[in-house]
Amino acid sequence: MLFPALVDAWVGNPDWQVFAVTSGIVIFVGSILFATNFARHEELTVQQAFLLTVSIWVIIPTFGALPFVYSELSLSYTDAFFEAMSGLSTTGSTVITGLDGAPPGILLWRGLLQWFGGVGIIIMAVIILPLLQIGGMQLFKVAAFDTSEKVLPRAAQLGFAISILYVALTMICGVALWVAGMTPFEATCHAFTTIATGGFSTSDGSVGHFDSSLIDYIVVMFMIVGSMPFILYLKLVRGQSWILWQDSQVRWFLALLALLVSFVTLWLWLGGQYDLAGALRFASFNVVSIVTGTGFATTDYTTWGSLAILLFFFIMFIGGCAGSTSCGIKIFRFQVLCSMLASQLKHVLRPSGVFIPRYNGQPITEDVAGSVISYLFLFIASFLVLAVGLSLTGLDFVTAVSGAGTAMANVGPALGPMIGPSGTFQALPDTAKWFLTFGMLLGRLELFAVLVLFIPTFWRA
Amino acid sequence: MLFPALVDAWVGNPDWQVFAVTSGIVIFVGSILFATNFARHEELTVQQAFLLTVSIWVIIPTFGALPFVYSELSLSYTDAFFEAMSGLSTTGSTVITGLDGAPPGILLWRGLLQWFGGVGIIIMAVIILPLLQIGGMQLFKVAAFDTSEKVLPRAAQLGFAISILYVALTMICGVALWVAGMTPFEATCHAFTTIATGGFSTSDGSVGHFDSSLIDYIVVMFMIVGSMPFILYLKLVRGQSWILWQDSQVRWFLALLALLVSFVTLWLWLGGQYDLAGALRFASFNVVSIVTGTGFATTDYTTWGSLAILLFFFIMFIGGCAGSTSCGIKIFRFQVLCSMLASQLKHVLRPSGVFIPRYNGQPITEDVAGSVISYLFLFIASFLVLAVGLSLTGLDFVTAVSGAGTAMANVGPALGPMIGPSGTFQALPDTAKWFLTFGMLLGRLELFAVLVLFIPTFWRA
Ligand SMILES: [K+]
Ligand SMILES: [K+]
Repeated sequence: MLFPALVDAWVGNPDWQVFAVTSGIVIFVGSILFATNFARHEELTVQQAFLLTVSIWVIIPTFGALPFVYSELSLSYTDAFFEAMSGLSTTGSTVITGLDGAPPGILLWRGLLQWFGGVGIIIMAVIILPLLQIGGMQLFKVAAFDTSEKVLPRAAQLGFAISILYVALTMICGVALWVAGMTPFEATCHAFTTIATGGFSTSDGSVGHFDSSLIDYIVVMFMIVGSMPFILYLKLVRGQSWILWQDSQVRWFLALLALLVSFVTLWLWLGGQYDLAGALRFASFNVVSIVTGTGFATTDYTTWGSLAILLFFFIMFIGGCAGSTSCGIKIFRFQVLCSMLASQLKHVLRPSGVFIPRYNGQPITEDVAGSVISYLFLFIASFLVLAVGLSLTGLDFVTAVSGAGTAMANVGPALGPMIGPSGTFQALPDTAKWFLTFGMLLGRLELFAVLVLFIPTFWRA
Repeated sequence: MLFPALVDAWVGNPDWQVFAVTSGIVIFVGSILFATNFARHEELTVQQAFLLTVSIWVIIPTFGALPFVYSELSLSYTDAFFEAMSGLSTTGSTVITGLDGAPPGILLWRGLLQWFGGVGIIIMAVIILPLLQIGGMQLFKVAAFDTSEKVLPRAAQLGFAISILYVALTMICGVALWVAGMTPFEATCHAFTTIATGGFSTSDGSVGHFDSSLIDYIVVMFMIVGSMPFILYLKLVRGQSWILWQDSQVRWFLALLALLVSFVTLWLWLGGQYDLAGALRFASFNVVSIVTGTGFATTDYTTWGSLAILLFFFIMFIGGCAGSTSCGIKIFRFQVLCSMLASQLKHVLRPSGVFIPRYNGQPITEDVAGSVISYLFLFIASFLVLAVGLSLTGLDFVTAVSGAGTAMANVGPALGPMIGPSGTFQALPDTAKWFLTFGMLLGRLELFAVLVLFIPTFWRA
């Protein structure tokens, strides 16, 4: 947190003391945690790995909320924690209105939370989740980890490489946005939250505030970059030029985006509201923003009509690729499902035949299939419980349902007059904010990591 | 169709000629079909079985729609086909307003369509679906069918026994409703549509028209009776007194109903709108009606607040037990999913352990698991496509989403001002009506039976 403190000191804002104090606390607590939990155990048990993972994602926003409380915004702790969790989980739902006049330190802090959250989740997805064997993430186990006994040094090396790459991509994005017309500060903040598919902006009007088609397309490109498997970029850098295209998850993801963008472009264009170029610009930006779970908006797409509302509700669950900063259900799970369905249909027509579902050319093991299915079932169940919980606090049907979805898929904006793309989460009851905060955590940690903590046998082991 | 003709002749309504002519056509076409398709093949191929099944469920409403066209209601063919498919599939969505003054023959015809549809689906679920191995229905393969080579005689015997039982239960229900205060005609119509979990009524006010708590509870009881596996009733009659309670699907179903009714009762009572007895009466009737997919209403529950709207939207997907007249996703599929999820969670905590999911005490085979999962995935996918299709015809979010759900789960009423429990489907655009009609067929035939016809390889075999 020294960086926002310097920025605030530089623009002469008294908030810098707040950042300095907060940074001190976080560094202090962080060191203790690191010392006791991580360094002392070279080999973590499964239980400890779960507990450590969840602790990190709860403790950081617990302290990361402090700048929002102590700054001139004076948010309540509920609001501040909501904002911090929304940042770290790269959700991007906000309770702050008047972003355009907010202290730069606060804007930068929001961007940094998302930026750290983004790289944190990539490293977690590559290093920890496959070992925990949850939600089908074991498909992405890095081969080297299986043979080597010393996991930690290899993991640290991999994490370092990913971080370097992440910084480099952020810088390219930032420079491009700056060249395209943003101020250096705006470009920095938006680079942080674009590569992290986070969606926090420096303006209430989100990216629409800049009203530049060049900026729109740059952001579209880096939202897509942020939603693809970062481990493939490493391979790309090491000379495997076609690696991205060889990955079936990436192919499906890009094909799906192309399909959805074409459909919405055509529909907007035929609707007569935009010319073809305008339709493509608004369709590509907003569709990519919601599918990747970034949550920027360049216009209030809920005014496009009932088809748009329905479509934007459904596509927010899709998400990007595993091993990216994107959340949601993720492409590979749909691939596993489609493959299982195709085998099943063939089996129905030829009951004597044996048809094996495959992912990326490999047979899908019963273990992977079972954990993908369990993930989806848990996702739907959690979504229903969360939506019912939200409606118990008095929210209407559309707000409750879309709020639950946007939180669990870490998207950001929801639907309806309150929490739609042109609203904020400010006016929701505190209980609803806590429910949503929990939903963000649940979605970000692929459900299982959080929910196992609620199983009594977890604590008995 | 001779029965409604006699009723109309009896009450002196000229519609009887319409019924007589229609009956003639149906009997004629039916005989030809029976002769060519069924009697000549003692052993059907899988393809023929699929084709025969779907044909029956398309041809009957094609002709069953005629009375609605030629009666004094003079419905358009779209409306008439919608009404007939809604009847035969036991959905119960209606395009007719002014039921209270409609010709008795028409009211009876609607009841009969549902009644025949109800017994048709039970027989199909017991005899055909397990052989087609779709949607996990192979769990309910009748043991005797596996060993015997001559399936047809056994099947006919079983179908006959189920039909007798179905008639007997309908008569008990009818007499109970008559004693409770309905006219013999109303009691007959409601007995038909209650046991079939169909939901067509003789009044625009549905069962709420009678305003009798005795009638409400009788209907609740027989909606539950209609949603349990009829093959268990046969065993019950043959002296296996505890068979119902020994079946885990029945136990889960009743427990779930008890839980939901208690929750809604408590919530209504605490809300202060009803006293405890009133809350129990309205909660039990409307919750049971929607969970079982019957679709009767005794009040407009959408005025109960946002929690009720959300809850009634979710519970309409649940459905009853396999082998009943009820539709929806069905209890056993949730049991299979829960069991898979439980095994998965145990496996996550103890990666070295082996945990086998079970249904009713038996291990769930990979085949059954795969086909349950495929069913659910297809259900969700079809639901999304149907909802998008409906919103393309201009329907709003809530109408499109709840309309798609109510059609596919064969429930009847949806949500929103147009097609909620106090509205009708009359005002929808024709395209939307055809979409919904297709959705009803899809849901009723467990998706696969219809969708395989769209696979090119189906026709090549
Ligand atoms: K986001
Ligand atoms: K129904």
